[in-house]
Formats: sequence, structure tokens, C-alpha cells
Amino acid sequence: MSMERAGRFSNMVVRRPLLAKQVKIDDQFWSPRVQQVKDVMVPYQWEVLNDRIAGAAPSHAVENFRIAAGEKEGPFQGWVFQDSDVAKWLEAASYCLANEPDPDLDDLVDVVVHLVTKAQQEDGYLDTRFTIKESEKRWTNLRDNHEMYCAGHMIEAAVAHYEATGKRTLLDTICRLADHIDAKFGPQPGKKRGYPGHEEIELALVKLYRVTGEDRYLQLSRFFIDERGRIPHYYNIEAQTRGDNQPEGQYVKTYSQAHVPVREQDVAVGHAVRAMYLYSGMADIAIETGDEALAKACRHIWTNLTTRQMYITGGIGSSVHGEAFTFDYDLPNDTAYTETCAAIGLVFWAHRMLLLDSDRKYADVMERALYNGVLSGISLGGREYFYVNPLEVWPEACEKRHDHGHVDVVRQPWFDCACCPPNIARLLASIGQYIYSHDEEALYVHLFVGSAVRCELKGRRVSLTQETGYPWTGQVSLVVGCEDASPFTVAIRIPGWSRGATLAVNGVAIDAAASPDADGYARIEQSWRDGDRIELGLPMPIQRVRAHAAVREDAGKIALMRGPVVYCLEEVDNGPNLSRLCLPRDGALGLEEPDEALGGVCAIRGVARRRRSSTEQADALYNAANLEEDEVPIRAVPYFAWGNRRPGEMIVWIRETMRPEAAGPGR
Amino acid sequence: MSMERAGRFSNMVVRRPLLAKQVKIDDQFWSPRVQQVKDVMVPYQWEVLNDRIAGAAPSHAVENFRIAAGEKEGPFQGWVFQDSDVAKWLEAASYCLANEPDPDLDDLVDVVVHLVTKAQQEDGYLDTRFTIKESEKRWTNLRDNHEMYCAGHMIEAAVAHYEATGKRTLLDTICRLADHIDAKFGPQPGKKRGYPGHEEIELALVKLYRVTGEDRYLQLSRFFIDERGRIPHYYNIEAQTRGDNQPEGQYVKTYSQAHVPVREQDVAVGHAVRAMYLYSGMADIAIETGDEALAKACRHIWTNLTTRQMYITGGIGSSVHGEAFTFDYDLPNDTAYTETCAAIGLVFWAHRMLLLDSDRKYADVMERALYNGVLSGISLGGREYFYVNPLEVWPEACEKRHDHGHVDVVRQPWFDCACCPPNIARLLASIGQYIYSHDEEALYVHLFVGSAVRCELKGRRVSLTQETGYPWTGQVSLVVGCEDASPFTVAIRIPGWSRGATLAVNGVAIDAAASPDADGYARIEQSWRDGDRIELGLPMPIQRVRAHAAVREDAGKIALMRGPVVYCLEEVDNGPNLSRLCLPRDGALGLEEPDEALGGVCAIRGVARRRRSSTEQADALYNAANLEEDEVPIRAVPYFAWGNRRPGEMIVWIRETMRPEAAGPGR
Repeated sequence: MSMERAGRFSNMVVRRPLLAKQVKIDDQFWSPRVQQVKDVMVPYQWEVLNDRIAGAAPSHAVENFRIAAGEKEGPFQGWVFQDSDVAKWLEAASYCLANEPDPDLDDLVDVVVHLVTKAQQEDGYLDTRFTIKESEKRWTNLRDNHEMYCAGHMIEAAVAHYEATGKRTLLDTICRLADHIDAKFGPQPGKKRGYPGHEEIELALVKLYRVTGEDRYLQLSRFFIDERGRIPHYYNIEAQTRGDNQPEGQYVKTYSQAHVPVREQDVAVGHAVRAMYLYSGMADIAIETGDEALAKACRHIWTNLTTRQMYITGGIGSSVHGEAFTFDYDLPNDTAYTETCAAIGLVFWAHRMLLLDSDRKYADVMERALYNGVLSGISLGGREYFYVNPLEVWPEACEKRHDHGHVDVVRQPWFDCACCPPNIARLLASIGQYIYSHDEEALYVHLFVGSAVRCELKGRRVSLTQETGYPWTGQVSLVVGCEDASPFTVAIRIPGWSRGATLAVNGVAIDAAASPDADGYARIEQSWRDGDRIELGLPMPIQRVRAHAAVREDAGKIALMRGPVVYCLEEVDNGPNLSRLCLPRDGALGLEEPDEALGGVCAIRGVARRRRSSTEQADALYNAANLEEDEVPIRAVPYFAWGNRRPGEMIVWIRETMRPEAAGPGR
Repeated sequence: MSMERAGRFSNMVVRRPLLAKQVKIDDQFWSPRVQQVKDVMVPYQWEVLNDRIAGAAPSHAVENFRIAAGEKEGPFQGWVFQDSDVAKWLEAASYCLANEPDPDLDDLVDVVVHLVTKAQQEDGYLDTRFTIKESEKRWTNLRDNHEMYCAGHMIEAAVAHYEATGKRTLLDTICRLADHIDAKFGPQPGKKRGYPGHEEIELALVKLYRVTGEDRYLQLSRFFIDERGRIPHYYNIEAQTRGDNQPEGQYVKTYSQAHVPVREQDVAVGHAVRAMYLYSGMADIAIETGDEALAKACRHIWTNLTTRQMYITGGIGSSVHGEAFTFDYDLPNDTAYTETCAAIGLVFWAHRMLLLDSDRKYADVMERALYNGVLSGISLGGREYFYVNPLEVWPEACEKRHDHGHVDVVRQPWFDCACCPPNIARLLASIGQYIYSHDEEALYVHLFVGSAVRCELKGRRVSLTQETGYPWTGQVSLVVGCEDASPFTVAIRIPGWSRGATLAVNGVAIDAAASPDADGYARIEQSWRDGDRIELGLPMPIQRVRAHAAVREDAGKIALMRGPVVYCLEEVDNGPNLSRLCLPRDGALGLEEPDEALGGVCAIRGVARRRRSSTEQADALYNAANLEEDEVPIRAVPYFAWGNRRPGEMIVWIRETMRPEAAGPGR
């Protein structure tokens, strides 16, 4: 059904994301986070990029630009993709400017834009690594060298900067870079038939096409997507050209989703961030061109990813080895890699799938990742970050076990490989883009975030103002704004996790929420007047969620969720050795008042049974004696808020016991 | 209490292991295995050592001796410790000759002994690696080069050969080797104060001392033990001498238990096999010299190992990284390394601790390792081996997950690093040595194995003949043999796992089993007459065993045991995804008749609940819906017998549910 819908929509109308400027956030949950990007993260990250934060891993990213621009002498330092940190910072700063004018930040961004432009070469080439060092190796190793990845991030930054400020400074620079790349790569004779090892430029070129209207950028993006994984394999061709006659193995090709042409792919594989960026680009091309084969591949991969390879937090990529997907239902909690950037990438892709096919399943996953696996990547204060987001942490194992060495117990001020911090900044600063979308008929409400959106529908300027205490309450009110009576549809997502949603228009209950359309949206089609009010009520019980029986790691366990928020147990609230706890199936669970010390989250209280460590137990490692348990109170906090107090253990999946709470007559 | 006993015994009397020749095995469980060593393993392994088995990893071990002996030309091949495979083969073959004369095998052994002797150098040095290649590097890197490790195995082989055949051929050769080492190493001026990176020679030299009476060998062993870990550190000294001025890090020192002097050690650390061989040597020295500080260190380490770091199978060393111990209660089942050789080493050490301190806890662990973690290392047919013995196997993870890459799903015909197969052969062929021991007062029965033992007690020649169907039944009969009325004590171990043991002498019940001494032995002290019969009855219910609450991996799970035998579930009996199964706490479990197709083991039958994979379940990865379960029959087989049918999943630890079996009145 959703595929039919999808076909209909994608053939009928191109739906594009809203601009950052079209949506204003005014929300108790998100506004402080958006503000934090501007007040804390952007200034802090600027200091880090300039190597001025003691204790943070050195970046050298801005220094590289100064050297490439001829302002200083020195060697290139950092990863081959170091430039992308500056690009993501520029993009995040631009979204901040779109949200709220700030002359000082605007000036600083102008300085950086000037520096970037100065670092560009005569022919449009822009990459400090191969400008400062080994310029003869430009474009000789697309598989490893990340030149196109950095270019992609620069393009995203330029588009964001132009849309936020109206200034063409960075956009013009970056169009010269895109033109340079277009001159080197493509199906035309004399050009190389290459494509990047780390995808990113594909989705970026679609953004550039949308803002410039320049079809060449769309065609170049499609070329990169079409060419990927074709035989003869470009990784082999360029390796031979370099004099490396060892053909590249299947592992490296799968790692970058280049093992087969993309339209033949139906399973999420390889490096998870690369995968998300590729699939996002594929969806973009499908949206823009109506390419059904691409859309179909996206849908198949989506189904595999979200029903076989995704953690309950929206974290993806379970293995540190290759930062990659492994195989269906392999979702270890304690060694989970689940890179913050991969969850961010999942939000990007979900958003595009939602534009491609209106179906709440995409918004459900987008919301799941946003409230859990993305937000866990940043401390409540905004200055510390997790790169890896496991669902279970035993600090002693992280310290002493070789196969847990990738798990940090506390968030870090920066990383040697610092992709995640600026990535989360740019996502949070542009969160407004993900809440709504529209086509010719309808204005869609995908996320419940206090905000106001303005758009044109059927030639009329309309607005919608959303108020809500989500995710702590399920009450959402939406007020329509329009100049005169406007017939259009308001399509409101009824989340997949909800039961018994209610809807009222101007105080009159309507049935739409109880029986949303097959795509999960409740559609209210009427002639709207200014000030019309829609009230959505989403009951928000605390839910015990089980994983599919094939997920071995979660057998016999439950996770607590309320609305979209996944909860966890922390040692600071529940004492050490969280594996000793089990939750009775029917035990009562209650919600606490907002915890201001923890950013206003609502914690969950309950009673668990805890295995006793008696004196005998303390010595015998294996024992046939009976199990002794005590009743103890437990407290669960949102997963995203964990690790903001004392370092300690954490678990998402909690053992469940079937033991009846009340003693029966037989006892 | 046991430490007091220990002090008493170790100060009073030196107890030594029985000779292989003193015990004859006639047992339905062990005799076929002992016979298999002679009929299958020794001939098969001889073929492998000569590189004549297709599909087995090449050994080159015999070829190296031919080259070193000057019979052939060629390069050394294999590991630096390749010689030890030949030594362990010689030792196993010698035990076979002790068990049963065999002129053909005797001739073959003579040929190998001749070859080994021919490979010895003028000065007594014997190690093909540094004879064929880089002889200038002899004894320059004790930390890594395994020369003393190989020498130790040669010494053990020589002692076994002499005791089995009375021939001094190999013994004389090996005494020249030991003398060579004694001339090079020791506390005396002009000698190096070195000790081996891989312990083994310490326990071997004690054996050589016992058989030759030559005190120098005991003193050399003690020197190696005393010197270990002292400052200045020998690893640093020899590194500097080699021109390597990078001082060795703590990791490598801990890896080989050389991080601090041995008397200061109280936790099992580092490479598990090395650790077992060291601790065995320490116990040997404590037995022979009455060194209480050494005995105390052994006891502390033992407590740590067996109450914090040992799997229920007697497997030890949980980490593939360094084949090593990690930390207390860190006992992952699926990534467990638990090398076969480490479990064998635990048997060696437990045996010595039992001689040092009479306490059933040592025999309990020895038995646990023997029936589980050791025997799992070999196929029922005797030709395939596990190097790694995990307690949970998911074949897809072993194939696809980088952190499971060390786990073989099926036993292998040989290994590139082939320490385990000949090690298991020498242990099985000498199993008789582990059943009994004696001091001046008492004859101890540690293990229940059909057998006859002869020894001298209080100047009288006595014997004991044991008959039993153990481990499948708990009925054990012991018949005393003596020329005339002999007053001595028969001390029978009442296993730690047993409840309600009974004892009778000549049909008359006695109380000793119900209240054994504090050391766990039931002592019957009387004037014995020839033919007196003791009947021991050990009730053998199927037991549900739980791990200590601190073992996170086993939380909420049980293991099935009966007597000393740990059971497991295999996919071939129970279908795929064993994590879906859980055992009701009070569900009935029953014993099957012996399964001849599986070597006569008694399997366990029961009923479990299995999570259903319904159509809805099949798609949703996370679901708040209720759990649906079916009742299904399950079959558990002994852990040691797993993997002898089709490849598939296996688990030892099974989830337990508290759900009552019968519906109460409230339902």
C-alpha cells in the first residue's frame, strides 16, 4: 500500500525539504538545544578547530586552510578528511544565522568563507590536504582520499550559507569547485568514470542543483550513483593507474557499498555513515527524477535496515570493525558501535524517504533516532560528545577488555577523528527542516515540536503554529493561519508507538486519529479559517518493549519506552551490577516530575527484583542453591541523558521476570 | 581449616604423584578414551608431525629434527616452539607403553629418541630452531624464544619414557640438556639470572629431580621460580644485551606472570596456559621444599581463579587477546577463549594442589575441567580438535563477526599452532595418575574411575580396585587388596556437587559420607582385610546451576549439570536460535538411556518455552505486544560431546523463567 502511494506521489510531484528559514522553533525540549548550538557548540567548536581548547584532541583544521591559503607556512596535519570539520562548522553556523541574525557570527563566518575561498586553487580545486602536500595525487585515489567527501560537505555548507544569508560568496566558490569536479568526472569521453569511496557529494550536489537550478549538478550526482559498483570496477581501474596491480578485495568494496551497482542492493552493508549518505543521495535522485528503480532499492534497503539491523535507539552499525553493519539480527548491546554520525545519517535518509513516500514508518524511525541515538551523542551541557553509543556499558570491561576498547564510558571534549561533534551541531541547528513537509494538497506534520511553519499551498500562504510539551506529554495543539478560508489538508502523523490517539478540531472530536490512513497519517481536509485549532492527544503510557525473537542479545529482556523516548538504567540511580535486576512483568511503573538537574527529563520509577549477593553467594562461582532476590526501587532515565552524572554502568535492555507480583493462594 | 591441614601435611610429608604404571584403568567411560590415544591419536598425530595428513595444517616438526640431526638439508619451519609437539607426542606414546606394552610403538619411540639425541649439540643444547638457524641467538631472548619451554617438554617426555620403559636413552640425552641449562643459568657468578617467557621447565625439572634424585634440578627449578619478576627485570636486561633499549612494558610482563615476584602474586593473570604451568611448578616446589610462602601464593591465586575467573566447564582464560585472563567475573560465553591447553593446565595444577593440601575443592575443579573443558577439546572419534572452547556458539557470528573470528564451529584436524592435540593425548594417556594419591596414613580416592591402584602404605603393599559407571551413575564400589590385616585409612572424596552421599563397608552403612571431614573427604580408618568392599552412593539428580550474581553474562540463566558433567543445548536437537528457549524453574527434567551414537552419553530431556516467531513478530524489530510462547521438548547433551553431529548453534547457559508450570486458581 505504501509503495503504491509512493509511486503515486513520486511520479506526481517533487517534494522538497523546507528551508531552515521557513520554520521557527519555540519548544521547551528543542529550543534550548538549538540555542545551545549557537551559544555553546559553534563557539566551542570554533575554538577546537583553532586548537585552542586544552585537553581536546588537536584539530589543525583551520590551520590547514591558512597554510593552503598562503597565509602561513607549515605541514598539513590531521586526517585526509580534516577539511570537512570546517565545512560542517560553516554549515552549522549558517543554520544558526538562519534561525536568528547575529552580526558577530555573520562576520566570523565571512572570515572563514574568505579563508576557504583563498585556499581554492586556480582551477577550482579545493582540498587543503592535496594542496599543501602531494598535489600530484589529486583525484588519483577516490576510494581512500575523501576529496569528494570534503567537497560534498563544502557544498552543503555553501547552500546553507546562501539560504541563511543570501550571500553568494561561498556558493560561488563552491560552484567553481563543483564545476571543476564536473569537468573531471562523468560519462563523457575524456572524463574519469569515478565515484567517491565515502559518499556525501551525491546528496550535496542535489542540494546545489535545487538552489542554483543548474541541471549539471543533478546529472553529476546521478552519475556518481549510477556508476557505483559497476564493472569494470573503478577502484581497480584507479589502483592500476596508480601502479597498484593488486585488485581490491570484496571487503573494501562492500565497506563503501560499491560491491554491486546500487539498484541491485537490497541490504544495508558496510560502513554505516557511508551507507546512510549514499542511500540519502539515492532517495534524493529518486525524488528529483522519479527513478523508480532507485526508489525501490531504497525501500528494500530501508526494510532490511529497520527490521533487521537497527537498535531500539535508532543507532546503527553494530561493529567497530569497519564502523559497519554486520548481519541480520546481530545487535550486541555492549560492543555496539552505533556511531553518532550514523544515527544522524539515518535521520537524513529517513527525512528523504518521507519526502519520497509519505509513510509514518519513516518519520517513526527519524523520531526514534533523533530522541535517542542522536541526542545521546552530546552531553546536556553541549561540550562533550560520544562517538560510540552502546546500549550497555560496564566500565571495567571498557577499560580492560580488548573487544570493548572502542567504548568510551564518558563523553569526550573532542576526537582525533572528529566527524560527530560538528555533525550533531548542524543537525540540531536545522531541526526545523524535519518537522513539516508539504505537497500540493497537504501540509504534513511529522514531528511534534513547538514551532511555526509558513508555506504556500494551492497558491495561498498558510501557516501552522504547533504547541506541545512533547516528548513528556502527548498533547499537541496546532493553530492554522491563513488570510481567508483555505481548503487544504492537514496530515498529522499518528506515531507507530501510539495507541488510542484522539483528534479534535475547534473542540469537536473527529475520528481521523483512531483510523489514520494506511500510511499512518490522520488527514483533515477542510476549508480552514485563520485561528482554527486542532488538538491531538497521544496517550503516553510507559511501554515495555521486546525485541524480535531473533535478536539473541535481547532475549528475555525488555526496554522501557515512553512515547519516542527510550529509557535506561544507570548505576548512579540503581547501584552497581545492573544485570542483577529484573523487572516483574506486571509491576507498576510511574513517571517522576521533571528532573531539572538532568535537563528537565521525566524519569521512570518502579520496583524490581535484585539478585542477592549473600555471604555464601559471594564465594561460590557456581551454585545449585536457590535464587535469593530482594525487592528494590529502580529509576530509569532517558537514554539520551545517560552519562551526565557520575561515570558508571548503564543498560537499556532489562531482564524481565514472569514471577507474579502478588502471592497466589498456593503460597 | 584447609590451610591448617595444608600446613600440617606439607610440613610433615612430601606427597608425590603416583606413577602411570601404578594404576590400571578399566572403565567404561575412560578406557575407550585411553585406548583411543594409543589406537588413533598417537598414530594419527605421528602422521601429522610428518606432514602426511592431507587437509591438516603442516607441522614440519619431525622434519626439523631430521635437519638438525644432519640427516637432511633444509630450512627450519614452524613456530619457535615447534619441537614441543614432538616432545608431547613422545610423552603421550610413553604413557601408552606404560599402560600396555607394544613392541611396534616401542620401536617407533626408539627411532624418535635416536633422532632427538642425534639433533642434540655437543654441549648438550637441544632445540632445532636455533640449531638449524641463528645459532648465535641461543639463549638471547628467553622472553620470546621458547627454548626453555621446549626443553621442559623434552624433560617431561624423557621422564615418562624412562618410567614406562626403564630405558635411559632419552633420559640421558635430556639430562645433558638440563645440565647445559644449569651451567648457563642460576644465581652463581657468571651465570645468567634468566627465566623462561613461557613457563614449563619448572615443573619438568621437579619431575627430573624426582626420577634422578639429582638435587641440582630441583634447585634450578626453584631458581627460575624465585627469579621471576624480580627487579632488575631480566626481560629488560636481555633486551639491552640484544641492543634493544626499549624497556619492556607491563603488559608483556603480566602476560607471562613476570610483573612481580611470584610470592607477591595473588590473582591469576596473563596467558592462561603459561599461568597454569607456572602455578604447577610453584606447587611442586612447595611440595618438595615445604616453602610456605609459595604454597600461600598458590592458594590465593587458586581462590581468585576458581571463584572469579573460571567457567563452569573448567575452561579458563576468557580472552583471545593474549589467550589470557581478564578480570574478576568477566566470563563471556560466546567469545570465551578457554583454550584446551589451559583446561589441561588447570588439571595439572589442581592435581598438585591436591598433593599439597588435601582438600576436595582441588579435586572438584580437576574433575570439572576433565569432564568438560578438557574433553570438549577432542572429537569423539579422536581425530579432530578444538583449540577454543566457548560456551555459546552462533555460527553466523563466528563467520561474520570480527570479534568472534577465533571461534571454530567445528573441530579441526590440526592447527598451525598445534599445542592442544598432543597435550590432550598425553593427559588422557596418563589419566591414571590423577585418580589416587597416598600419604603415610591414607589412600585417597579423588576421582571415580574404574581402575586398580597399587601402593605401599605403612610398609605394606596394598591395592584398591574401583568399579563404577560414573559419571552416568553415582554407584562406586572399592575393594581392598592386602596380604594380611592392614590398618590404614581410605579417604574418599565426597564431591562438592553431591548431596546425600552414602557409604557402606561390607554392606553395613556408615556415617562418614554424610559428614565428611572439613576437607571434603570421608575417612574410613580400620584394619582392612583382603576383599573388604566399600560402597559409595552418590545421588545424581539433574541440577540447575546458577552463576554468581556478579557474572553478568549468566544473569537469569541456568546451566544443567548431572554429577560432574555440564550439559548444553545443540541446534541439531533443539532447532535454531537457542536464545528463544527458556526453562521453567520447576519443569521436570529426565535422563535418557545411553546414546550409543554419541559415545554412550546420557542426554537430558525436558520441556521448555520457546518464543514464537509469529507473522507479526517476523517483521517488527521492536514491539510492545505481549510475548507469545509455545511449549517445546528440549534435549541437552554433555558439553564435551557437542559438535559431533551437524554444525550448528550451542549454548550452555539457558534462560530460566519463573512462570509457574501449572495454572493457579486465579487463572
